[in-house]
Amino acid sequence: MSRASVAGRPRPSFAGWLGKTNDITRTFLSAGRIPGLINMGGGLPEPATFPVAEIARIAGEVVAAHPGEVLGYGPIEGLPELRDALARRFSGPTTRLTRENVFITSGGMQGLDLLGKVLIDEGGLIAGQFPTYLGALDAWRPRQPSFRNMQLEDPAFDAQAALAGAQFAYAVPNFSNPTGRMVDLVTRKALVDAAHRTGTWLVEDDPYGLLHYDGDPLPRLIDISAGMAPAPTYAGPVIYMGTLSKEIAPGLRIGWVIAAPEMIEALTMAKQGSDLCTSGLTQRVALAALEAGLIERIQPTILATYRARRDALCAAMQAELAGWFEWEVPVGGMFVWAVARDPALDTDLLLPHALDAGVCISPSSVFDATGRNRRAIRINFTLNEPERLAEGVRRLAVALTKMQARRS
Amino acid sequence: MSRASVAGRPRPSFAGWLGKTNDITRTFLSAGRIPGLINMGGGLPEPATFPVAEIARIAGEVVAAHPGEVLGYGPIEGLPELRDALARRFSGPTTRLTRENVFITSGGMQGLDLLGKVLIDEGGLIAGQFPTYLGALDAWRPRQPSFRNMQLEDPAFDAQAALAGAQFAYAVPNFSNPTGRMVDLVTRKALVDAAHRTGTWLVEDDPYGLLHYDGDPLPRLIDISAGMAPAPTYAGPVIYMGTLSKEIAPGLRIGWVIAAPEMIEALTMAKQGSDLCTSGLTQRVALAALEAGLIERIQPTILATYRARRDALCAAMQAELAGWFEWEVPVGGMFVWAVARDPALDTDLLLPHALDAGVCISPSSVFDATGRNRRAIRINFTLNEPERLAEGVRRLAVALTKMQARRS
Repeated sequence: MSRASVAGRPRPSFAGWLGKTNDITRTFLSAGRIPGLINMGGGLPEPATFPVAEIARIAGEVVAAHPGEVLGYGPIEGLPELRDALARRFSGPTTRLTRENVFITSGGMQGLDLLGKVLIDEGGLIAGQFPTYLGALDAWRPRQPSFRNMQLEDPAFDAQAALAGAQFAYAVPNFSNPTGRMVDLVTRKALVDAAHRTGTWLVEDDPYGLLHYDGDPLPRLIDISAGMAPAPTYAGPVIYMGTLSKEIAPGLRIGWVIAAPEMIEALTMAKQGSDLCTSGLTQRVALAALEAGLIERIQPTILATYRARRDALCAAMQAELAGWFEWEVPVGGMFVWAVARDPALDTDLLLPHALDAGVCISPSSVFDATGRNRRAIRINFTLNEPERLAEGVRRLAVALTKMQARRS
Repeated sequence: MSRASVAGRPRPSFAGWLGKTNDITRTFLSAGRIPGLINMGGGLPEPATFPVAEIARIAGEVVAAHPGEVLGYGPIEGLPELRDALARRFSGPTTRLTRENVFITSGGMQGLDLLGKVLIDEGGLIAGQFPTYLGALDAWRPRQPSFRNMQLEDPAFDAQAALAGAQFAYAVPNFSNPTGRMVDLVTRKALVDAAHRTGTWLVEDDPYGLLHYDGDPLPRLIDISAGMAPAPTYAGPVIYMGTLSKEIAPGLRIGWVIAAPEMIEALTMAKQGSDLCTSGLTQRVALAALEAGLIERIQPTILATYRARRDALCAAMQAELAGWFEWEVPVGGMFVWAVARDPALDTDLLLPHALDAGVCISPSSVFDATGRNRRAIRINFTLNEPERLAEGVRRLAVALTKMQARRS
């Protein structure tokens, strides 16, 4: 999209980045409305897990109890009581957080957008964990950064070299999107140590942290950092991002950033020109939900549901796709990452065949800043019931067979 | 703010625009919490006009009635039924709007932010109506545009020259922020005609349209444009922006953009990387409020309240400030714009004296991309009751007297 025209009259060009964007996220969000399609492409939660009755009650109550706050403008940084509640929630033995460490965003995506606004000038370098979250690439593209792969899984990984010269490093340590992998403890410590030594900001994006199905959790990067340099108010290089989208419901559009106060100040300047403040209604609902222990109450159901679906997906894949792809069973998150055994298999070409067969998956190219990784697919297991996951996998096998028949 | 450091370790520089920003909007939003201060600086509504009981009832109802939509992710462009309702609301005899013309934003500010994202590359030209809305300057600063004043009130105003070469022209035709002036009909027609001839996008920002206290409204730019080139779906150069913030309540953070479908498509790509979608909860509340006729039900109270406050402010100013300032009584909006009689009076210097005296007003520099206009102030009359407005004006007179005493 470079030059627009209406009724024959030329309009000014759109900004340069629009010519380099993708619309696959939009495809995922709207794929739910194609009749009969099995959508395993997006990262959507199971709506049956939403605590509908509790939120309906809370929503009415907070408007009546806090009308000025819910219906008026609020502080850019977020509702003070919600910031306090999150500071308490994420404090630990050495991680001392106050309100000044906490910033409320209109969903997790806004945290990524604002981070780009405050740290990226054109050409600025981001050290990424590739393949990486598609939405982060979407958020930063308008600021035209350059990217370098940190190579986290290289046995010779050198954290200081990986971070050197970057405005920030971006990682999803828990059940990374798209690969579903955990960053191991040694690498976590190396990343944090390198951030302390180089001064580079280190972004810990953690939307999936509570979606942990097997084994024990590993410490957060921000907790490792706080342990390295104890302070009465956290002032280190880690920028931790969280969201209610996977833990309660995405429709509230409530996320948060926990970081050094100087970063919260900069994000505040950026949010002032983005949306002034997040809705007082959704913030008050989020606070009441946290205080009522809603996350803890619904988490066992969410975990049991998603664990069973992961197992069903992997069993179906083993039966239908093992000849084409290989994968690891993820211990958490929402996705299985499957890499083609045949290096010539192009998953960008697979997508239209899959849609024809009635199933949507994500091709690997969208998780790569260069678009060159075309050998893998990401399959979501949280949105669909086990039988539908199995049917989706069968449809994918049909698409693969058809594509192969056409090539040979 | 150019280089950050924590605990002695240097961090990467913040993005360049952060060194050029202001934090006066933040001062306004937080000034409400300084004890005893009379805040006439911001553009805040009177909370007593919020329809609290109705919104409390609606909020609970929509969660229960539409749980998947309210609590799940929704389409980036907005809730289809809300887009339809706004298309109907803003259609007219020649203005034919469909869902494809309507885009939902997280408050009016987000429309400005996204417009900058899709139209501005560094150095791109914006034709502005200076002095102009501070928030628009905040929204576009991160994209580093250049500005040119359209000189709308110059008797020799040449609309085609004013628009030539610009990515877009930006105007607040109804009760402009900060001046409170209406753009007259001749100038409206000239602007729209020039937009049609040059192809330049013409932004009609209309947050105050319904806050009209005296006389008749003038036609919207988008209606003039639709009349010039009738089409089954509006496809002209005007980008109309509205919001519920002044008409119902800002805390819902619901705004909208009405424009040609190609612009809605571009904004959709931009919003995907900004916040994915606006909260389903606040969108459903907005739709139910529109369908219940809430705007029409509360408008008479809002108009009577604000008209009386405007009159009280202007009477107090006549008694206390006529020696220092001159102004026009605005026929709508939220502000009186007062220009110092003495060209040497510097309103940036007045602000700290005013805050010392217990009153907040906006100095003119913040409404000017260059910061050079320092001769005027903007005074808000919507937030405070008549007696408090009069007391605020007395405090301002005290500040002026003290500042003059120090200078002489």
